Parts: sequence; structure tokens; C-alpha cells
Amino acid sequence: MDGGKMTVTTTLHFDIEAPALLALDWGTSSLRAFLIDKRGEVAIHREAAWGIQQLPSPPANGGFDLAFELIAGDWIARWPLLPVIACGMVGSAQGWCEAPYVSCPADLASLSSRLVHVRSRLGIDVHIAPGLLLPRRRKNVGADILPDVMRGEEVQILGALYLHHELAERVCLVLPGTHSKWAWVEAGSVMHFMTSMAGELFSVLRQHSILGRLMPAALTPSINLPAFEQGVELGYKAAPGKLITLLFSVRSMELTGELPSDALPDYLSGLLIGTELAAALRGPDVLQDSPLALIGSPVLTQRYGHALAAVGHASNVVLDNTAPQGLWQIALASGLVPQPETTHVA
Amino acid sequence: MDGGKMTVTTTLHFDIEAPALLALDWGTSSLRAFLIDKRGEVAIHREAAWGIQQLPSPPANGGFDLAFELIAGDWIARWPLLPVIACGMVGSAQGWCEAPYVSCPADLASLSSRLVHVRSRLGIDVHIAPGLLLPRRRKNVGADILPDVMRGEEVQILGALYLHHELAERVCLVLPGTHSKWAWVEAGSVMHFMTSMAGELFSVLRQHSILGRLMPAALTPSINLPAFEQGVELGYKAAPGKLITLLFSVRSMELTGELPSDALPDYLSGLLIGTELAAALRGPDVLQDSPLALIGSPVLTQRYGHALAAVGHASNVVLDNTAPQGLWQIALASGLVPQPETTHVA
Repeated sequence: MDGGKMTVTTTLHFDIEAPALLALDWGTSSLRAFLIDKRGEVAIHREAAWGIQQLPSPPANGGFDLAFELIAGDWIARWPLLPVIACGMVGSAQGWCEAPYVSCPADLASLSSRLVHVRSRLGIDVHIAPGLLLPRRRKNVGADILPDVMRGEEVQILGALYLHHELAERVCLVLPGTHSKWAWVEAGSVMHFMTSMAGELFSVLRQHSILGRLMPAALTPSINLPAFEQGVELGYKAAPGKLITLLFSVRSMELTGELPSDALPDYLSGLLIGTELAAALRGPDVLQDSPLALIGSPVLTQRYGHALAAVGHASNVVLDNTAPQGLWQIALASGLVPQPETTHVA
Repeated sequence: MDGGKMTVTTTLHFDIEAPALLALDWGTSSLRAFLIDKRGEVAIHREAAWGIQQLPSPPANGGFDLAFELIAGDWIARWPLLPVIACGMVGSAQGWCEAPYVSCPADLASLSSRLVHVRSRLGIDVHIAPGLLLPRRRKNVGADILPDVMRGEEVQILGALYLHHELAERVCLVLPGTHSKWAWVEAGSVMHFMTSMAGELFSVLRQHSILGRLMPAALTPSINLPAFEQGVELGYKAAPGKLITLLFSVRSMELTGELPSDALPDYLSGLLIGTELAAALRGPDVLQDSPLALIGSPVLTQRYGHALAAVGHASNVVLDNTAPQGLWQIALASGLVPQPETTHVA
């Protein structure tokens, strides 16, 4: 096994005698495996770079099987009856086995009823959760709802609603990333969501555009808050379409001495995230006034927290990756894992 | 001389005995030289790839001189007293000699009074026109006018106003390109302008993003009008900030079968140009209801003409590159070229 590609985290309360579920969060660029105990808590966490676009061997040569064996083969050898569940791009048309999308509105019950499974070379089934589809709704152009999709984030959403029951009634969940997702939940169902390209736009503009050539080669680890917040406010309050011209201000603000070159990355990041906030919070087709919760890596949730505060929105709940909790809930709801005895009380 | 890098066009009415001006349109990626006769008409046009970022030798090794000699050395040898004028990025801080920006509002008189000149190795002066600056104006955030800059397009604007005197009273000039410029003119002065990154965004998203990977490798020469117009309308009518999520619809519309992959380039182009039209025509800080005129290469002006028509705006005037006429006007106004005798009549 290529140890350099895998990291392992072991928690202290690992009940090594009785894991209840092997949960895989299997995306485009990474594969994470969680061994979950019978209380639904993560006992061991392994992570490798074997996302579906960078498997250890081509898919036609058993690349999915190989990645699965490399990350969890020893566990399966030890507990051959362990149920296995997966979510993310592993269920896409380019994945191990396609799990068709479930349409919004969707909740734990509808998502749990549509698992598919694939028989692995190790002889056990890997159950794969479906993605979520927002179907197109035609109104008048402009207010038209375009189709949208997610795979993996819907499981994080279920995990967040499990960890914070009080959110399920009404919340807007924000999942920052390369393609950020904003999801509006009412009474436990995802009613509506949108995808933002802010993360990928930042990356391609920084690496491949004239704007990137003005910036220092290395990103500084700390955020330049004044430059970031200036960008956020401009992006958030801008008139329709203005992002297309605001982007050029990265150049003109530097050229006219309004911003130093080392402030430009955070200014650009602010413009893009501020625009995302406008799309999510100022638009006509979103559910207004829902409380906000952030889910993701601390670096990203901190940046989005700053941006939300800069435009007068607070996020009271901030969570790290909640996919293991979401997969645990789906495994319970689908019967893959028996309900814990405590739920039968009363 | 590298003949493969240069094209020459000779018009029929070339009065070879008496050229009046050598005009250089010298940008980032190309150098165009126009030999202009005493009536202000282009007699010979040469074009080479020696933009300021791809000179035939480094700037410190006389790269500007060498490019100048390669494209026009024979003309200078034949007419050593020919006045020479240039515009574009050749006057930037990275150019041959920096010509500081003139601030808006600006007109032929103010731009013509601020030429700089550099002595070439051939012993004659090359006069360089300044660029145009829109200074920052602080209002409340959101309505704040950010600084903006152009170099070269201001000369095309003067050329267009010369060719179409009726425009000078009130017009919005649209110059599509990698960084499109929209300029609002009143009474012969450029009052306000904006830059759009739609062209560069299309290019980097097509080449470097997940959206580009969904598209056919080669662009089809003809425009897919239904897909383009659908994108234009969505981009134009979108709520504030929506571009950031509309971009992802390039993926979701393909994934859900709403658009075939070969329609995606024109759909994306439409989204971006529609957004540019919204920024220019729906914004609070622009002069409303000016008639529109398009300046640029036929491929681009045709595409923008389709976009304008799709959102109910017509452009009655469409012009190809008007830089030679603009440089001619500046040469006349600055005294570099004597006023033609006909102007002294009456």
C-alpha cells in the first residue's frame, strides 16, 4: 500500500470488538473511510487521494475494487459481515455504480429508500447513496429555476440535521468548496438548493488569467481581512451582472495604487464570495430569513463566516465534515444497520 | 524579416508619393502599422504578432526598436520625415515609453495634448498617445465607482466619432474583446466607461475548468443561436450575483439532457455576454438610453449584435477597427500633421 497517500486517525473510544458500519465518503479527488461503532461514532478515519478521477488503477481494470481493498481490506478481512455504505461521485455515471438522483424535496426517508449496491471483489456488497436533483421549473425567463445537482453534500446535510435536531425545522445550510452548495431545509426536507462556482472561479482566475499574473506567486496563510471584506461588500451589494466588470477592478485597483499586489488574492476571493452571498441571500427564488449553518473544513467555514458577518448575516452553527453521521443515518433508515436498542425505549 | 508573422494589405488608392502619417496600433499581442495618406485614408496596412508581450527581442535589448524597424523600416528609409504616432499598451508602464493616463471626462483635445515621444534607433521620434482613466469616486458601497483603465480603445472611440459625427452628441460605444470596453460619450467627451472580463472568463473557463471538459475539443465555426440566446437572456435578466450559480448550469443542463454538449460553448458565451449587457445597460451608474454602436472584428460585433437584439437593444452602427482614423485625428489635433487645406475654406 502506498502509505504516503493515506492518513489514519484513530480516536480514543474505539470499541475494536464491535464496529457497526464502514462508511465511505468517495468524491472526485479523495476517498475517506470511517469505521463507525454501534453508537454511531467514528472510531477510525482513513483518507487517501483515490478519488474517482485518480484511482490506483483504471476503472476497467478494477480500480474501484483496488482502492476499496487498499483502504479497507484489512477491516473487511477482520469483520467480513460489516455493512458498507458509500456516498459522493462514486455513485455518478463515472463512478463504481450509478445511483440515480432523487428529486427535491427530499429527506432522510426518500434518500434512504434509493440505495443501489455493487458486489465487490471481496464478496461483499457496497451500498451507494443517491445524489440530489433540483428539477428545472419553467416560469418566466429570469425567474426560471434551472436544474442543479449534488452528490455527497446531501449526506452531509442529513448528518448536520442529525447532530443539530433544532435545525431541521428551518435552516439554510452552506457547504463551501470548489463548487459550494447552499441548501434550504424545511421540516427535515431539502426544498431547494444552488451551486456556486466561486471556488473554481477563484482557482482558474488565479492560475490562468491576467488577474493572477498580478498576484504574488505564493498565497499567504493568513487572510487579509480589510481587502477580503472590501471585496465581499462590493460583490454583495453590486447591481445585476456587475461581477463581470468588478473582476477587472482587481487589475485597476492595483494599477491605481488602491490595493497592493499581496492584497489582491483576498480581494478577488471577497468579490467572488460576496457575489455568491448575493445570489443566495438576495435572490427572488430562495427561502428568506432562514437561520444559517456552515459545514466544511475550518479554513473555508472561517472565511465564509467572515464574509457572512461582513454583510450582516450571522452563522450560529459551524460544523466540520458531517458525512459519517449522514451515512450512519442512512444506514439506520435503510435497515443496513439495526436500530440501536435505545430507540425502542418508550 | 519573418514573413510568416506579418500580413500586408494594400488598398487601390495608395498615393505612394505622399504618405502623411505612419500610425501604429500596438497592443499586448499584436502590432499593426498603417500608412495614411494626406486625406486621412489608410493606404497600406501591415500586421505582425509583435505585441509588447511578444517582441522579436527582449525590451532591454532594443525589442521595441527592432519590431518598429521590421514592420516599418523600409517606409522610414523612403520617407525619413514621416511623422509617427502610436497608441495602445506601447504607452503602458511595460511599454516603450509610458504615456500617463488622462482622466475622464476626456475628448480629442485633452487626449491630443498629452502625447509623449521616444527617440527610435532610426533617429525619428515615435509619439505615443495616453490611455484613459476613470478615477475612483466614493459614494456608498455598491454605488461606488471603482477605477477603470483603457489603452488603445480611446483612440478607436475618437476614430468612430470622426467617421460618424452624429454619434458624438450622445452614444454608448461597445468594443468587444478579451476585455470588452463600454464607453458613454456626451458632446464629444468620454464621460464614463466600464471593462468586462467576459471574453477572458470564457477563455479560461473553456480551457481550464470543469465546464470546458464537458465541451467538444474544437469550436464549431458557426454560432448555435438558440443556445447562445438562451444564455444571453438568462444572464441579462438574472438577479444580483446570479452569474456565480448560472455558470454551474452549463454542467447541470448537460447532465439533465436540456442541452447537448456541442451547444455548451455558445450557451456559456451567452451567459457571460448577457451578464455583461446587464452590467452595462441595467446598472445604476450608467447613462441610460444612449444609442449603441459596435466597434471591432466582424466575428465579435456579429455575436454582440445577436446578444443586443435578444434583449431588445439594437445597434445601428457597426464599425471595424477605427484606430487608424483615431490616430489620424490625434495627429491633426496635436499638430503632428498639418491640417488639410480644405478645413481653412469658409
